[in-house]
Amino acid sequence: MFDTAELGHKVGKAEFKERREELRARLLILQYRTRELGRFPVLVDFAGVDGAGKGSTVNMLNTWMDPRFVRSIGYRAPTEEERARPRFWRYWRDLPPKGRVGLYLSGRYSLPLLNRVYGKIDESEFDRRLAEIIRFENALTDDGALILKFWMHLSKDQQEARFDELSKNPLRSYQVTEEDRRNHEHYDDFVRAAEQIITRTNRGNAPWNIVEGVNARYRHLRVGEIIAAELSRHLDAHERQAELTFEPREPQAAVAPLPQPTVFDALDLSRGLPKADYKKKLKKDQARLGELGRKAFESGQSTVLVFEGADASGKGGAIRRTIWGLDARTSRVHQFAAPNDEERAHHYLWRFWRKLPRAGYVTVFDRSWYGRVLVERAEGFATEEEWRRAYNEINDFENQIVDRGVLLLKFWLHIDKDEQLARFQERENSPYKHWKLTEEDWRNREQWDAYQQYGHDLVQFTSTEKAPWILVEGNNKYHARLKVIDTVIEHLGQRLKDA
Amino acid sequence: MFDTAELGHKVGKAEFKERREELRARLLILQYRTRELGRFPVLVDFAGVDGAGKGSTVNMLNTWMDPRFVRSIGYRAPTEEERARPRFWRYWRDLPPKGRVGLYLSGRYSLPLLNRVYGKIDESEFDRRLAEIIRFENALTDDGALILKFWMHLSKDQQEARFDELSKNPLRSYQVTEEDRRNHEHYDDFVRAAEQIITRTNRGNAPWNIVEGVNARYRHLRVGEIIAAELSRHLDAHERQAELTFEPREPQAAVAPLPQPTVFDALDLSRGLPKADYKKKLKKDQARLGELGRKAFESGQSTVLVFEGADASGKGGAIRRTIWGLDARTSRVHQFAAPNDEERAHHYLWRFWRKLPRAGYVTVFDRSWYGRVLVERAEGFATEEEWRRAYNEINDFENQIVDRGVLLLKFWLHIDKDEQLARFQERENSPYKHWKLTEEDWRNREQWDAYQQYGHDLVQFTSTEKAPWILVEGNNKYHARLKVIDTVIEHLGQRLKDA
Repeated sequence: MFDTAELGHKVGKAEFKERREELRARLLILQYRTRELGRFPVLVDFAGVDGAGKGSTVNMLNTWMDPRFVRSIGYRAPTEEERARPRFWRYWRDLPPKGRVGLYLSGRYSLPLLNRVYGKIDESEFDRRLAEIIRFENALTDDGALILKFWMHLSKDQQEARFDELSKNPLRSYQVTEEDRRNHEHYDDFVRAAEQIITRTNRGNAPWNIVEGVNARYRHLRVGEIIAAELSRHLDAHERQAELTFEPREPQAAVAPLPQPTVFDALDLSRGLPKADYKKKLKKDQARLGELGRKAFESGQSTVLVFEGADASGKGGAIRRTIWGLDARTSRVHQFAAPNDEERAHHYLWRFWRKLPRAGYVTVFDRSWYGRVLVERAEGFATEEEWRRAYNEINDFENQIVDRGVLLLKFWLHIDKDEQLARFQERENSPYKHWKLTEEDWRNREQWDAYQQYGHDLVQFTSTEKAPWILVEGNNKYHARLKVIDTVIEHLGQRLKDA
Repeated sequence: MFDTAELGHKVGKAEFKERREELRARLLILQYRTRELGRFPVLVDFAGVDGAGKGSTVNMLNTWMDPRFVRSIGYRAPTEEERARPRFWRYWRDLPPKGRVGLYLSGRYSLPLLNRVYGKIDESEFDRRLAEIIRFENALTDDGALILKFWMHLSKDQQEARFDELSKNPLRSYQVTEEDRRNHEHYDDFVRAAEQIITRTNRGNAPWNIVEGVNARYRHLRVGEIIAAELSRHLDAHERQAELTFEPREPQAAVAPLPQPTVFDALDLSRGLPKADYKKKLKKDQARLGELGRKAFESGQSTVLVFEGADASGKGGAIRRTIWGLDARTSRVHQFAAPNDEERAHHYLWRFWRKLPRAGYVTVFDRSWYGRVLVERAEGFATEEEWRRAYNEINDFENQIVDRGVLLLKFWLHIDKDEQLARFQERENSPYKHWKLTEEDWRNREQWDAYQQYGHDLVQFTSTEKAPWILVEGNNKYHARLKVIDTVIEHLGQRLKDA
């Protein structure tokens, strides 16, 4: 595979200058078109053997492109904050917004490669890691992103010669580290693992390019010209698409699905209990949960609680009573409404990734990523194609959370249509609750039946073994609140006992 | 001081309900007015002896207020990422935006108090910490913020009784930690230190209120009612102010100052060197800086480089050549133009605080917080009162950076007016540089003389011993770039040798 990158390509000084001038002008114009269109981010990854000039080419690209819209992002060993989250947290956090370019060094391929070469992970774990990467890249390219990946190559002899040359130069010798020398001894293992990486993750929308690393001028131009060509093609396609649809695309409210029985129909909404019993039990529960929360913090066990349900279904009340007993220093509630500008310039999951808890914290999502398949579906902010694939994207997101050892509990609070009306009316008449009732709530109510179906679909596709939905009978608030708290106590208690 | 908070205030159930209803309605309306006006954030701090009910009152306030615009923020021991930055980094990062309310537990007073009680810091260090807090609070209140601080009090006997009561309750006993018992033994020291805190940091715009903690109903109401009263007063003042000025305030371009000789006049702009010498030296310098950068990363030495200067003064070119030799994984360049919406909703220093480097990283600010006394002064985005006090705010900010051990270097690139014109013309004619030239650049050029004065003032007031300005003769790019790199090498080298 890499023989084709040992052909000794070279570019002379004069040719370099000429092609560089042309390329720079071209890259700038492409950057402006990308920025102007504002529909997709560009991720450019640099991997390759040590000494092949990844860093210097990234530096060169930085001097060629408009620095306002390009950013270099490199990674060292994960920090304490990064280790507490799913592996891809740091890559999600650092995504360039739509219209901008990110240049990545030691990115998502780096650790799987190193760990495989040094035998820290076996073949099947390596496979699993590559599959993770593919899912990450798919989520982005499905959303329109352009991902370009470069493998910078040197033959084993060339690498050795490069290290020797650097070592002899008193100015450069520091660049050759012990790690580089150790890696050189594993050269064949690197190339073997790289071949696996490239064959498994080389995809139309996120292609690999292998580039000869020996000659810097050749390498810089080659990389720059590939970026220009691919970006140009990608822009053309997006611009055609933008012409075909309307810009900005008008949201098209979903066609209401055919009514059918839903999972919620089976809930016994008559369940309730006397106020005195509720109060007593609640007090006990809150104390118990407070105790578990402290233990969870001490042992680094994180918890994510997701709340969904119709307007006035009691999410806020259940949340406040759940976190009541928890230490406010280690618990957070995030409310989600329409995204702000910065959030809109990213993949819809981005703003949720950013809020994942540190080790030992409890984080509550009052409404969540499920907005994609609820309000965004209902109002047409997401196309059918988009909300349909969202179920899988969400499952994958949640899998990553759960795999990191986080306790994830998802509560759907269900009330019936009459109960909602009663609560709306109560809110209207209360001096400190009427703010809770907006025009939008009434509008959503008109789509009641459709939302039942959206909820049903959501449970159907995203209630997984690892992250099941807990359906909560919500007509009786006492019952609902206790069910939520008891569920958290049960699962968190189990987790801490198992640990 | 605290005898006044041992009077045994109590509120009965019926009274509580009545006053609570009124208070909730009032707090909500005040929240909306605050949100609507969008001119200031509200910070409410809860300190006090253990067991006095800080957490439960914060919880109660959360149930009373509109959760969309209020957030609880609590702190544990500083994390790895926090320890690498100035002490106040985490408080700056978590500031509520204008129009919103933050409720703080174990906030900025917590560590100085604990450290003083346990003798980890002496009296003069304690004083220094309190002075730091005052500067932090002043920066915010000068910008319009409302800061309210509550000391929740229990007498020593009440505290003991409280702990005994909790310990006897099997549900609550976990709440009394060994730390609480240890703190109880130091009760008198706590009260003494608290008295110092309150007397020294009790200020008109950030007042302390001492609240009896024994009776929860009394405590909740008292705190809520003080917040309502103070917020109402603060809103009235701001709203009157908003009526007097125009809303939104029209920027008023500064009156150009009287021309006077500036520090830049003394620079010898004829300094230069032959291209061949430059190239040779640059290569050597970049290698040397690369080596230092690696050592700095290994030893956790952070570096902040600030670049200011007229349009086309060569900031970008100097920055690119400076970071060329550095590892892209541990260096970052941040460009600053007009703030985005989220940034505008905060104190002007907020967006810069967020970008301070982790341990061992090099962070470059391509334009910086000095925009406050340059473009914001020139264009009238900051009032005279605002840009004048900015010099001190900036000095304080930089002091905190330097005190944390960060190497801070500030470069002012100076060119003369003819050189700028020549560069503008060159940019106009270059296929890949014309993007660098905007209408705004030409407009700024018209204010050339005024900007010279603004620069002069800035050097005068912010070139401090800890954070001096390095004036760079910029007409000759070779000289300028080498001077920048050599300066970084010299200071970083010294730092690493001293370490």
